[in-house]
Order: sequence, then C-alpha cells, then structure tokens
Amino acid sequence: MTLKEDAINLHRMLKGKIEIQNRVPMDDVFEQEAGTLGLIYTPGVAYVAAEISKNKNLAYEYTSKWNNVAIVCDGTRVLGLGNIGPEGAIPVMEGKSILFKVLGGINAFPLCLSTQDKEEIIRFVKAIQPFFGAINIEDIESPKVLEIVERLQHDLSIPVFHDDQHGTAIIALAALLNSLKLVGKRLDKITVVISGAGSAGYGIFKILKEAGCTDIIVADSKGSIFPGRIGISDNLYKQEIADKSNPRKLNGTLKEIIRGADVFIGVSGRSDLLDYRTVRTMNSNPIVFALSNPDPEVTPSEAYRGGARIVATGRSDFPNQVNNAVVFPSILRALLDLHASTLDELTLVALASAMASIVEDSQLREEYIIPKVNDPRILPLVSKTLKDVLKQPY
Amino acid sequence: MTLKEDAINLHRMLKGKIEIQNRVPMDDVFEQEAGTLGLIYTPGVAYVAAEISKNKNLAYEYTSKWNNVAIVCDGTRVLGLGNIGPEGAIPVMEGKSILFKVLGGINAFPLCLSTQDKEEIIRFVKAIQPFFGAINIEDIESPKVLEIVERLQHDLSIPVFHDDQHGTAIIALAALLNSLKLVGKRLDKITVVISGAGSAGYGIFKILKEAGCTDIIVADSKGSIFPGRIGISDNLYKQEIADKSNPRKLNGTLKEIIRGADVFIGVSGRSDLLDYRTVRTMNSNPIVFALSNPDPEVTPSEAYRGGARIVATGRSDFPNQVNNAVVFPSILRALLDLHASTLDELTLVALASAMASIVEDSQLREEYIIPKVNDPRILPLVSKTLKDVLKQPY
Repeated sequence: MTLKEDAINLHRMLKGKIEIQNRVPMDDVFEQEAGTLGLIYTPGVAYVAAEISKNKNLAYEYTSKWNNVAIVCDGTRVLGLGNIGPEGAIPVMEGKSILFKVLGGINAFPLCLSTQDKEEIIRFVKAIQPFFGAINIEDIESPKVLEIVERLQHDLSIPVFHDDQHGTAIIALAALLNSLKLVGKRLDKITVVISGAGSAGYGIFKILKEAGCTDIIVADSKGSIFPGRIGISDNLYKQEIADKSNPRKLNGTLKEIIRGADVFIGVSGRSDLLDYRTVRTMNSNPIVFALSNPDPEVTPSEAYRGGARIVATGRSDFPNQVNNAVVFPSILRALLDLHASTLDELTLVALASAMASIVEDSQLREEYIIPKVNDPRILPLVSKTLKDVLKQPY
Repeated sequence: MTLKEDAINLHRMLKGKIEIQNRVPMDDVFEQEAGTLGLIYTPGVAYVAAEISKNKNLAYEYTSKWNNVAIVCDGTRVLGLGNIGPEGAIPVMEGKSILFKVLGGINAFPLCLSTQDKEEIIRFVKAIQPFFGAINIEDIESPKVLEIVERLQHDLSIPVFHDDQHGTAIIALAALLNSLKLVGKRLDKITVVISGAGSAGYGIFKILKEAGCTDIIVADSKGSIFPGRIGISDNLYKQEIADKSNPRKLNGTLKEIIRGADVFIGVSGRSDLLDYRTVRTMNSNPIVFALSNPDPEVTPSEAYRGGARIVATGRSDFPNQVNNAVVFPSILRALLDLHASTLDELTLVALASAMASIVEDSQLREEYIIPKVNDPRILPLVSKTLKDVLKQPY
C-alpha cells in the first residue's frame, strides 16, 4: 500500500480524528433528584453563569476556556497544497488538534472558514474570543495573514500565535544553531538564503535578524528581494525584507544567489527547486533545510549527492524533522498557563536557543540536530524560558 | 450545601465540563518510520486534504464533519438570566454539549460570541459552515434570533436548529397532547394562554396553530397581543402572532386573560408570575406548564394549591420536565444522519406526536406526561419519524 492509500484508508475508517468528550462523572447524571444533571445544566448551571457574568475572568476557573485554543484557517495555504478551500483543510487541522492534545494537553478546536476575506477573518477571530484562552492562526495565505496576525495581536486580549510564522521561525533557528556548531561556523559570519517570502520566510528572516545574522538573502518565485524590485510594492512585508536584508543587493535567481551560501532554508511550498548541482555551488559544509511539505525543495538524497553536510526537512519520515510540531504545543501550553498575551522577536529567539540546548553536545550529530517532537524535556524548558522572558522588565 | 454551592464547586473542580479527545490509535504515533503521525499529519494527510479539495462532500467521509454541531450563542438570553454576556454563557453551552454527546453521540462545540450584532452573527455562522454538519442556535435574544434563524435556514446548506424555538415547541406540544388525554379535552376545543412572546413563545404558538389549536392567546410583559397593540409594530414576529392568534381579540393582563383558560404555558423568563389564586380562575382541570429556568413562573406546589391538575416545569428536579433536552440531541442526531436541511412546522408536529406516543396509555399519569430525558426509545423514534416525513413528496 502506498502512503496515500494508507492515509486515505485511515481517515475513512476513523471518520474524524478528534471528538468532544465529557469530563463529568455521569453515573447519576439522569437521576431525578439531586442528580449531576441539575448541577451541570439547569437549574444549577445558572448560578455558575451568573457568577461569571459578574466577573468574566471566572470563565478561566469554571469552564474549559483556560485550556481552549481555536485553530483558525481559511484554506488558502494548506500545507504545500495552496488554496484548497476550508473543507480540504479539515483533516490537517484535526491532525494539528491531535498534536496539541498529545503534546500540550490542549483542547484545540479546528475552525475552517468559508470566507477568505481579510476583514471578515479578523472580525471572526474577535468574535470567538470568549470561549478561548488563545488563538492559533493556521495556513492562511500571506501577506494577508501577516496583517491579520499583526492586527489581532494588537486588538485581542488573548495570545495570538501564528504557527507558520512563529513556530517555523523558532524551530528553524534552533536547528540552525546546532547545525552551525557541527560545521564550526558563526551565525554572524554566514550567508543564509531563504527561499520563500510568505509567512514562514518572513518569520525566519525576522528571527535570524534578531539573533544576529546579518547576511540574509530572501528569494521569492521571482528571485532575490531587494529595494525597488518589481512586484513588491503592494506587499508591506516584502518591502520590509527588501529594506532590512540582502546587504550586497544581490539581484538574481535562486540558483544564482545560492552560490557560495552557507545555508539554504526552503519554505517555498515548491518541490524540486534545487538539484545536486546547485547544492554543489554552495560554500563548504552546506546546510540544507528543505522544509516544504509534503514535498521538500530537494530530497535528502539529492542534497547529500550535492555535498550537503546537514539536511533537514519538515517531514516525520526523514531524520531532522524541522517542523513546528516540535514547538507549538508547548508554546501554546506555556502561553495558556502564564496568561501571556504577546510574543515578541526577542522571546522567539530565547525559545529557539532553549530548543537547541535540548540536544546535548555529546548527542549532537548530522542526523540529530533538534529534539524529536515527543521529547519530554521540551515542555518544561519552554515554560521556564517563557516565564523568565515575561518576567524581564521592558 | 445549597444547589448554588454544589454547582459552583463542581465547576471549579472540573475547570471545564468538556474536552477534545483523540480518536486515533497513538501507540506508534511518534515512530519515525511509517508511524501514525505520518498518516494523520504531514506528509500523509496532504493526500486526504487534496482529495477533499476535489470533492468537498468527502469531508463527511474523512473528517468529523458528519458528527459536528456548532452551538452558537451571543450571551443575550441565557437561560432565564437575560443578557449576561458570552463568558457567562460558556458553562451553559458546555452543559448543553454534554447532553448532545451523552444523548445523541454528537460533538457539539460551544461558540460564545463577543458580538451581539445580528448581521455579524449571520456572517459568523456562514463562515463556520465547513467544519460542521449542523448548527444549533442557542440563547440569543428575540426577535433578533428569529430573523437570524429564518435567514440562515434559507442561506445555509446544513440544517439550522434553534432549540429555544423548535425544541421547546416540540416538547411542549408533546406534553400538551398527553395532558389533554388525561383531562379528556381536545386540542381544537381548548383555550391556551402562552406567557412570553420570545423564541419559545413564538415557536409554541406556531406549532399549536399547525397542530390544530385555534384559541391561543399570547401575552408578553405588556399583556395580551392583538392587532394594532402598542409596542409590536417594530417586531415582525409579534405582528404575526397578533394577526394569527387571539380570535376573541382579548385585551388584558395575563391575570385577566388566563381566566377560564384550559392551559397555561409559561416561557416568559419570569418567576412568580402566577399565584394559586390566579390558577383558581382557570377552567376545570387546569394544565400549568411553567417552563422558565431556573425559576418557573409558578412553583408546582403553588400551582397545585390553585387546583392545577397537571403541572410541568423545565427543571430536572421536579416531575414532568418539559425541557428541550428531551428532544434536541435526537433531532440533531437524526438531522445529521439523514443529511436533512429543513425542519418545517409539519415536521415539528410529527415529532411532537411521536414524542407523546412514547408514554403509553397504561403508564400515562399526572406526573408522567412525557418521556424522561434518557428514555432509550426517543432516538430511534425521532429518526424514524424524521425519515418518514422527509420521504413525503412535497
């Protein structure tokens, strides 16, 4: 059986990977006198509702709000598949919900929207706030999503996490920090080429800058981004990239700008973007992160053929899964527990360093640069890191 | 301990009455090679997503959509508490979700909205469609909610059920049919006074008309409703009530119009509306349904003191719980299973007759006029009834 057949058969069999479950002891729930039903529903629940209406913070004490995350997706940029619509997004969001639960103990509710309008999505997320302790924005196309996240982070009183942007940035930097140890290079001395200027590319660009990387070149499908380039004037985020990266003002295709680079990070959503010949043009000990899913920019075998020293993908069936699944459940867990509401670039860098530190020097090797998705040390360390950062005076 | 203390303590202890659970066998979920993770998430899930994007009906086959209901509430009319806001509504909606699960096997997701704007609520419900097989509108104030439901039923391709309106109507008519058997009266010969002209009052008025009841008088807080009465011109639904009820054009307070009535149905949201003296003015063998929660319009003891022959409330801690909890889980279960999208008045009457028939004549008595909420015969009968009605040619 192929992977495709296995996946479809499993989904057909399960008819839904998640479900709502009851946390109430139900033994006597339907007894007429003094049964649990009279406490969890009418008439008893009215007293609980009335208390919360007087002090809405009590929703964190008396309901599941403290542990609920909304996964909001409009289906415009699902995995590497592009705009497949909200129904197609459902199995992906259900899978994500499972990871939230298994790795973070979180109730994550998939909300796949029939609208792709920016203002409607913003209004939608504002409207769902009461039941949720945090929001996870997922698989919405950029640059629309970058503005949505920016505005929601400003307007909402609960944390807004954008996994494609923040989660990918953290795990990519963590993987890079450990890879640099292995090849003996320094972050402030290397050249990094990022392919893809969407949410992940923008997020990685921002975190690398904050972490001290200076020579970053970001390329989209039209080649390297630099000030005044055609096709970026209507995209505020590409303009920001143009202004703050590419110090040598390189103007070229990916194949041209990758020549001599130390690191390639692919978040382009496109497969077969590199071949072994291109990898061969990179600097010594090339680091190749081909993170697009399900099909990476270059297969590990092809990258190794071109001389890559370290290769990572976003997939769980290759070594070095640089996938936001490694970080998002613990970050949301910590955000919920700490009642935090912001996540600035400095915090993201601190989280990346913490993630990198989980792989001890004695264990570090080419095929083990980041902790596995189920490493039990992730959650406590993320919590501690976030707590420390939030304690800092600004 | 009082009921209030018990209820608050239970909610504080549970910190949420529902949660998201995983339906996937997780034994090997994090094995690197060929583990379940590669099927339920990247890369395998991409194939499932792609299939659904080609035929969105496959979302019913490969995801939980077939079994998901959204409970949508804006907090404006929660139980008998009025406009307590969306946070206060959460414990009520979680309780409702439990009933959906225990009695109908349904995943019901509470979505408590921070907006109370009619147009925004309509847009919101349209936006959440992809993940859900049906919508349950809950505890939104009328007449706003009646228009919301009417428009959504017209515009959506999945069923829209309004429990306060449809559920209450079905169970009230069911209880009335059996009560009339006990007192030996006929539906087309009796006078019914309905107190409350909101969702429940409107729904009960509509179903009684459809079932053949002709002398219905509906009262709101200003007294009986008749054509041209002050205060109804801005409310289309009260205008409809005025035009189609109260054939004797009675103009009076509740206490005035209840004189000589056979049946009182209270869905007013107000307690202590009747006392034993008022009940005494009713016709022989008075039937008193005081359905407001948590505090009924008149307590059973007070109603009996006034000579009531049959008394029902909405509460689980008195006999005869005329509560929509008796019907909504099975109706939604059947709507989901049958992929039905409409619920007209004729269908509601058919469902009420079916519900009434569950109490066999040999069992029927003053304190047992409707089946208990957990009667195992409800679900199969509701399914069969709905199937039969939907099969009828129109």
